[in-house]
Amino acid sequence: MAEFSGTTYAASGVDIDAGDALVRAIAPAIARTHNERVLRGVGHFGGFYRIGSGDDGLTLVASIDGVGTKLKVAALADRHEFIGHDIVHHSVNDIIACGARPICFLDYFAAGKLDVEVAATVIGGIAAACEALGVALIGGETAEMPGVYSGSDYDLAGVILGLVDQEHIVDGTTIRSGDVLIGLPSNGFHTNGYSLIRSVLGLNEDDGSAADRLSAALPWDETRTFAEALLEPHRSYLATVGEALEHGSVHGMAHITGGGIAGNLSRVIPSGLTAVVETSSWSVPRLMTYVAERGHIATEECYRVFNMGIGFVLVCRADGAHDLLDTLEGSVRIGEVVSEDSDERVTLVAG
Amino acid sequence: MAEFSGTTYAASGVDIDAGDALVRAIAPAIARTHNERVLRGVGHFGGFYRIGSGDDGLTLVASIDGVGTKLKVAALADRHEFIGHDIVHHSVNDIIACGARPICFLDYFAAGKLDVEVAATVIGGIAAACEALGVALIGGETAEMPGVYSGSDYDLAGVILGLVDQEHIVDGTTIRSGDVLIGLPSNGFHTNGYSLIRSVLGLNEDDGSAADRLSAALPWDETRTFAEALLEPHRSYLATVGEALEHGSVHGMAHITGGGIAGNLSRVIPSGLTAVVETSSWSVPRLMTYVAERGHIATEECYRVFNMGIGFVLVCRADGAHDLLDTLEGSVRIGEVVSEDSDERVTLVAG
Repeated sequence: MAEFSGTTYAASGVDIDAGDALVRAIAPAIARTHNERVLRGVGHFGGFYRIGSGDDGLTLVASIDGVGTKLKVAALADRHEFIGHDIVHHSVNDIIACGARPICFLDYFAAGKLDVEVAATVIGGIAAACEALGVALIGGETAEMPGVYSGSDYDLAGVILGLVDQEHIVDGTTIRSGDVLIGLPSNGFHTNGYSLIRSVLGLNEDDGSAADRLSAALPWDETRTFAEALLEPHRSYLATVGEALEHGSVHGMAHITGGGIAGNLSRVIPSGLTAVVETSSWSVPRLMTYVAERGHIATEECYRVFNMGIGFVLVCRADGAHDLLDTLEGSVRIGEVVSEDSDERVTLVAG
Repeated sequence: MAEFSGTTYAASGVDIDAGDALVRAIAPAIARTHNERVLRGVGHFGGFYRIGSGDDGLTLVASIDGVGTKLKVAALADRHEFIGHDIVHHSVNDIIACGARPICFLDYFAAGKLDVEVAATVIGGIAAACEALGVALIGGETAEMPGVYSGSDYDLAGVILGLVDQEHIVDGTTIRSGDVLIGLPSNGFHTNGYSLIRSVLGLNEDDGSAADRLSAALPWDETRTFAEALLEPHRSYLATVGEALEHGSVHGMAHITGGGIAGNLSRVIPSGLTAVVETSSWSVPRLMTYVAERGHIATEECYRVFNMGIGFVLVCRADGAHDLLDTLEGSVRIGEVVSEDSDERVTLVAG
């Protein structure tokens, strides 16, 4: 039996399996709330509710999410200007993966003690990100909860609302054998894996050493600190995905968040098919290999927790792939879809 | 100068003024995200976004909220079955106050360590409340955030989405002098004031005495414990408000949450008018007078933090008031609107 002594996501305090158990436990109760207007069940990048009357297929798409423990890194660095961009971009990417056009956002900010300056910076970032993407910030809640959050900790969640015509929902059902996988580059860890990252990089200490480590320069780039690299805001794929959809050859899309490439791409691959991802087709960012090496994290675990350099995947018709790869900045062919039944729906191969 | 040594909301750790300062700080950035489809600014019970094309006035109404520190009481009592009803009913009440019909809900559940049983109970409650109100639960996020939440603490927020035709938005603009205020009874503190309540009732101790106090019987009703009374789920006014709207004489509505009767009713009273609320027209629930007395809380502070027995206020045409009071179960005439300019828009008078 192979033994493994490296850091895992579970050891850093996040239990993906418990989350799966929860989803199974609540699924029947959730299903009972659904009527004929709820167009897809749960498990997609957004929830769908048809609001059009009669034949009108106008459909609301909504997704709720949090920033996770990237917040702890922001708090440690006392840099809150991009956390708002993180939650907005993360959320927008989720619903554009369904073919929706984002229209509105609402935020939830909760802290033990309200620090007006920090909250104004965070929510100001949310507003700036919304403005840049043409999304209206139509609501928000700021909760002061003494005793729930310790010290200067806060939590941040947000909801994105979008619209799509029922006929234009992109959910992967048209994906077929021979389709090409196009990866769009991430610009860092985005908003996933931070509990593991913090554990590996020693950012959980209370003695000031963690703050020092965060303000140190990257070993491979002395012009940038760990804080800057780790707090790089989640990239928005809105413009790129808009271009791709105009092209007309996209069959499915996946936003690569918690669960990594396989965990997210599998959500849109139909039964009977397998997406084969060739991991040698792009370079894993230096920051990710560094964290993996420092933490002795198994490669498989890395691909399960981090985006590994690919933040969004388009599954497109083979005859449209060349054009898309030419058009979409930074895009790279990362594999293809084959006729092969598998439970996982996605296989990562090394070369 | 009068001195006052009782408990205040600020002393219990919640600073309403800091919240107001934050709202002022972020308002310009939020306003910049708004386009011609955002029908009202911020400060209403919901955000409005017109989604209809051309002349179609179909408008999305959304509101995001949390349960606040009522969660701490639920955790102390280890009773989580109604917290889901709290967030759903609270949210639904907010948007029906705008004349909207609720359609969808999304939840956000975050904890330091995911307790599958607790989370399943909480989210199961959300689903049950949604099902009972005909609302579809179309999304949710469960976040495990080691280090942000201590021990078994969790936070819960939710977003309600509804629809209303632009012409049927109820926002108080048609309120006029002579209109009657009709109060609908609350069934407890609903989801507001719990930091103050916990402070007054000694529910913040870690030594087990707090749990004992919570499981004690009410001094005035030995068949009920403090836990049961304090965790009574937030009442839903969906059916009652539906009846009232059919009647056609409602000019404005207010859901009474943080800020109390004056703080919420003032949001719909037009300039130049004042709502005069006669506080002797209903009986303040025993639980509230008990907390007020135990904490030596000034009456004014009580009315600012607690609903004091009135969970929802309808402002209606004088000639329709009699019928409404006859029809709506438990409703009571609590005052009227007069021609008087005041900054506060609402005056509480003792009788």
